[in-house]
Amino acid sequence: MVIKNVNVLVGDGNIINNASIVINGNKIEKIVPSDCAVADDNVIYGNGMLAMPGLVNTHTHAAMTFLRNYANDMNLQDWLFTKIFPAEDKLTAQMAYWCVKLADIEMIKAGVTCYSDNYFFMDDAARAVEETGIRAVLSRSVSGISDPEGKKLKESCDFFKQYNNTADGRITSTLGAHAIYTSDTDYIRKVVECADGLGSGLQIHLAETVKEVEDCIAQNGVTPTEYLDKIGYFDVEGVKIAAHCVHMTDNDLDIIKEKGVSVAANIGSNLKLASGIPDIPKMMAKGINVSLGTDGASSNNNLSIFNEMRLAGLLYKGLSMDPLMMNADEVIRLATANGARAVGNGCLGEIKEGNIADIILVDTTSPSIAPVGEPAAAVVYSACGGDVDTVIINGKTVMAHRVVLTCDEEEAVDNVNQIARQILG
Amino acid sequence: MVIKNVNVLVGDGNIINNASIVINGNKIEKIVPSDCAVADDNVIYGNGMLAMPGLVNTHTHAAMTFLRNYANDMNLQDWLFTKIFPAEDKLTAQMAYWCVKLADIEMIKAGVTCYSDNYFFMDDAARAVEETGIRAVLSRSVSGISDPEGKKLKESCDFFKQYNNTADGRITSTLGAHAIYTSDTDYIRKVVECADGLGSGLQIHLAETVKEVEDCIAQNGVTPTEYLDKIGYFDVEGVKIAAHCVHMTDNDLDIIKEKGVSVAANIGSNLKLASGIPDIPKMMAKGINVSLGTDGASSNNNLSIFNEMRLAGLLYKGLSMDPLMMNADEVIRLATANGARAVGNGCLGEIKEGNIADIILVDTTSPSIAPVGEPAAAVVYSACGGDVDTVIINGKTVMAHRVVLTCDEEEAVDNVNQIARQILG
Repeated sequence: MVIKNVNVLVGDGNIINNASIVINGNKIEKIVPSDCAVADDNVIYGNGMLAMPGLVNTHTHAAMTFLRNYANDMNLQDWLFTKIFPAEDKLTAQMAYWCVKLADIEMIKAGVTCYSDNYFFMDDAARAVEETGIRAVLSRSVSGISDPEGKKLKESCDFFKQYNNTADGRITSTLGAHAIYTSDTDYIRKVVECADGLGSGLQIHLAETVKEVEDCIAQNGVTPTEYLDKIGYFDVEGVKIAAHCVHMTDNDLDIIKEKGVSVAANIGSNLKLASGIPDIPKMMAKGINVSLGTDGASSNNNLSIFNEMRLAGLLYKGLSMDPLMMNADEVIRLATANGARAVGNGCLGEIKEGNIADIILVDTTSPSIAPVGEPAAAVVYSACGGDVDTVIINGKTVMAHRVVLTCDEEEAVDNVNQIARQILG
Repeated sequence: MVIKNVNVLVGDGNIINNASIVINGNKIEKIVPSDCAVADDNVIYGNGMLAMPGLVNTHTHAAMTFLRNYANDMNLQDWLFTKIFPAEDKLTAQMAYWCVKLADIEMIKAGVTCYSDNYFFMDDAARAVEETGIRAVLSRSVSGISDPEGKKLKESCDFFKQYNNTADGRITSTLGAHAIYTSDTDYIRKVVECADGLGSGLQIHLAETVKEVEDCIAQNGVTPTEYLDKIGYFDVEGVKIAAHCVHMTDNDLDIIKEKGVSVAANIGSNLKLASGIPDIPKMMAKGINVSLGTDGASSNNNLSIFNEMRLAGLLYKGLSMDPLMMNADEVIRLATANGARAVGNGCLGEIKEGNIADIILVDTTSPSIAPVGEPAAAVVYSACGGDVDTVIINGKTVMAHRVVLTCDEEEAVDNVNQIARQILG
């Protein structure tokens, strides 16, 4: 496959104008000037487009699309206990399949080529990911309070064994306890042991709310990060993602840095649930690998990393009153190269020879983007998910000119609309 | 014209499901249940759509589209004096026409049906507005430092006389001094006198930066708002829009409230230029009419009121850590009914009998919006400009299924791309 006549935002701060990207199998073979002769049957013309690395969404709960736009503007505890948890109890495996499929379609259409997910019904999620052609790190999330006999943890391990590194490498897996406040110390230790035994990474929700931090300090005398560090949660090999990290001390951040944990910041969700604002500039200054997540559709209310980039690019400038804070190249890095590092795939996140071909084409002739000026700024400040024209994942075209080629968009929308009516009334 | 089988977000917090909106001339004649027989040759089927009032962008500089994505992540003074002002000097009238046309197309495609503009080359802006079918309040912005002989102020008055209430009422006009720091007191007094003489309203940039406020206090012993109030700037009849209002004292806000001034808050632009964050919740608590603006494409970098609604809906919750702050209905009101009040048109901003038919249809079957759940939340938290399917302004369809019917989108994009290359290199 060749993408011809395209401007390339490499992802490292550089732009290559008017190039051809040659893709062989699932790899980027080379990037050459457009006037070089390149023979290929499968040509995508990228005129008026900007090719950039696919976006990585490092924290979501894809199956929660059925809860999109349900129960907004509420207190967190009311929201969780009177609305979200009761609704989740009614979700079946087949329903989850459709909900994940809708999430995958939504993300593909908004330029997300890889995401990291924590939820249940993970076999069904894997089926959806296989079909839609997206890339995903799937974690069967567990918590001690809902797993007295350890059956779910065993499920989680079985899922890892069956699915890690399947679907041509598009599906990988980790274990993960949901959060420190839904498991006791013994249970979390067991999760760590299992991860060690399997060579699996770990994910967790960390320091999302003030209450989580205060309760932990009251109970354990240390912060959530210090508590997990003592248990050895951050000593496993491989992918380590701490989602949220809104309320972190300097010592917490030093631990995260030292142990090579990646942060999945969820700016939109944290704002909407009024949890606070993650201090991304401080994390970056400490050299922590910060990436962007959307969280579930129930608290965002969409799965657009373009929206999160825009928030990252704007919010910290306004808060600090420093217009040089978080420039466009830095923001793009959060959503691409840093996301790739977070999910443990060093061959993603930049358009360069030898990397895996997860590439999106952004239509820069859109009247809300043109003139494109500085391409990185156009991506961060002007563009939205709807400006993505073409999506290539693992060397295959999964969306062309806004049409998802791998599955039926309308069918997924209709099914999830029906599921929402059935569960939520 | 009839819009059939549509769910209607009225704009007053209510939803009417499965209705027909009957439009006669430029007015909404009635809203009836879909099963009522309504005879009309011109039927728009709204199945799967949400009809809502067109969005009002109460502060922009449409012609600045040629500067989109140029010179980002810079200090305000460097940005203005080394980049923006020199580039603006090279703009010609014919160039401005195309730049405004692109802005109009962009806004129509993102559901903005009315905007308020301050810039120069206003005859050319009016020509573009006439052609594209959008509604606009056009103000030939003036400043004392660039108008020693008062020629520009005369131009501004002439423009008002020629264009106010033209294009079937779609074009209205106000006068306006650019800001207190670009005119001396005598000049601002002259602007007020002219407005009084013409029965025109006034617009101004107000308290956008800390520097503006500090300089004013140092020079005049009072804040910018107090200073303008003393000159009588807020005593004119009609439209009074104060754009930005980022750094306001309680007394400033009391003046704004008492004098019936509408605030055009520009959250995205204020964040990007690191000017600060306008305290919208406080203004609302004081009963001030707060509306939303995008500012120019040079500092946003697009003209999407959906983006501004999303910022308004998210930002204040996160800052206050109160999830009940600024609910979705309130946010929609900022962008619709309050916008309509700001531009002085009480027949806009809600879908109700007798109002002018400025209506947009949002496609709620989009995979980033479905399931639609609470429609107001879907609009504020899920939707983006690209989800607008159809736009009706003054009873006429100006966009159908994403195609702008009144002018050639590609021609405008090509022309502005060329203008940007010509001016910016």
